[in-house]
Amino acid sequence: MKRPQLLQHLASSRVARLATVDAGGRPHIVPLVFAVNDDADRIYSAVDYKPKRTHQLKRLDNIAVNPAVALLVDHYDDDWSRLWWVRVDGTAAVIDTGPQWERAIAALAAKYAQYRGHPPDGSAIVVTIDRISGWAADEPSARES
Amino acid sequence: MKRPQLLQHLASSRVARLATVDAGGRPHIVPLVFAVNDDADRIYSAVDYKPKRTHQLKRLDNIAVNPAVALLVDHYDDDWSRLWWVRVDGTAAVIDTGPQWERAIAALAAKYAQYRGHPPDGSAIVVTIDRISGWAADEPSARES
Repeated sequence: MKRPQLLQHLASSRVARLATVDAGGRPHIVPLVFAVNDDADRIYSAVDYKPKRTHQLKRLDNIAVNPAVALLVDHYDDDWSRLWWVRVDGTAAVIDTGPQWERAIAALAAKYAQYRGHPPDGSAIVVTIDRISGWAADEPSARES
Repeated sequence: MKRPQLLQHLASSRVARLATVDAGGRPHIVPLVFAVNDDADRIYSAVDYKPKRTHQLKRLDNIAVNPAVALLVDHYDDDWSRLWWVRVDGTAAVIDTGPQWERAIAALAAKYAQYRGHPPDGSAIVVTIDRISGWAADEPSARES
């Protein structure tokens, strides 16, 4: 897949999985909803609503000690000729206020009707896309990584 | 969710995502098919078929330098009250021959008809389950991590 198709798959997926690494070098992984910005160089996610603020989320702790993250979207099908995935290697920051936080929340509300009228008010995770790669089973040149 | 339900969600999922960490502390994430052993203390995955052996897969490189892995299954639904995920924190080993390799391949072929008659012949990844945790949106005590 070339970059436009990778980005199309990424932006149209409803859920991604975010991998982070803790101070001891252990990986952590969690699913999340996300949005890609118009310039296709950043990915936004957010922590929902205040009750969850009462404990610090592991993903936020990890990003504080190691901003390197990986984010994956994939398509599973029992017809394995239809499998594909797209991975972003990126650098994450946790943003709590300001224009970038507002852009993140607006992008998420634009993508997910579930957020409209009840937008997340916790921290935003902003991932700068360093590299985007992918694999599709139906491409002859497909190579897993 | 309690352990039996976590294991049921895990074992019945068709695809998981595996997070590993490279020597530089960067996370890597890839989707894979997998099977849980009968004792529910190990997860098997395998590298398909010889053509892919011609280059070393990043996930195998990472496990060689850092055996700590995380594996996630999740359910996405636009009805967010139906979301759930299950995560395994584990320790991975790469196995190329012997009884454990054979058990891994047999477990995968038992779960996936796609493997029958054409079982994978590459390395098996065997993850020892150190911890299993999860979250479901419809549980009052649900807490994300």
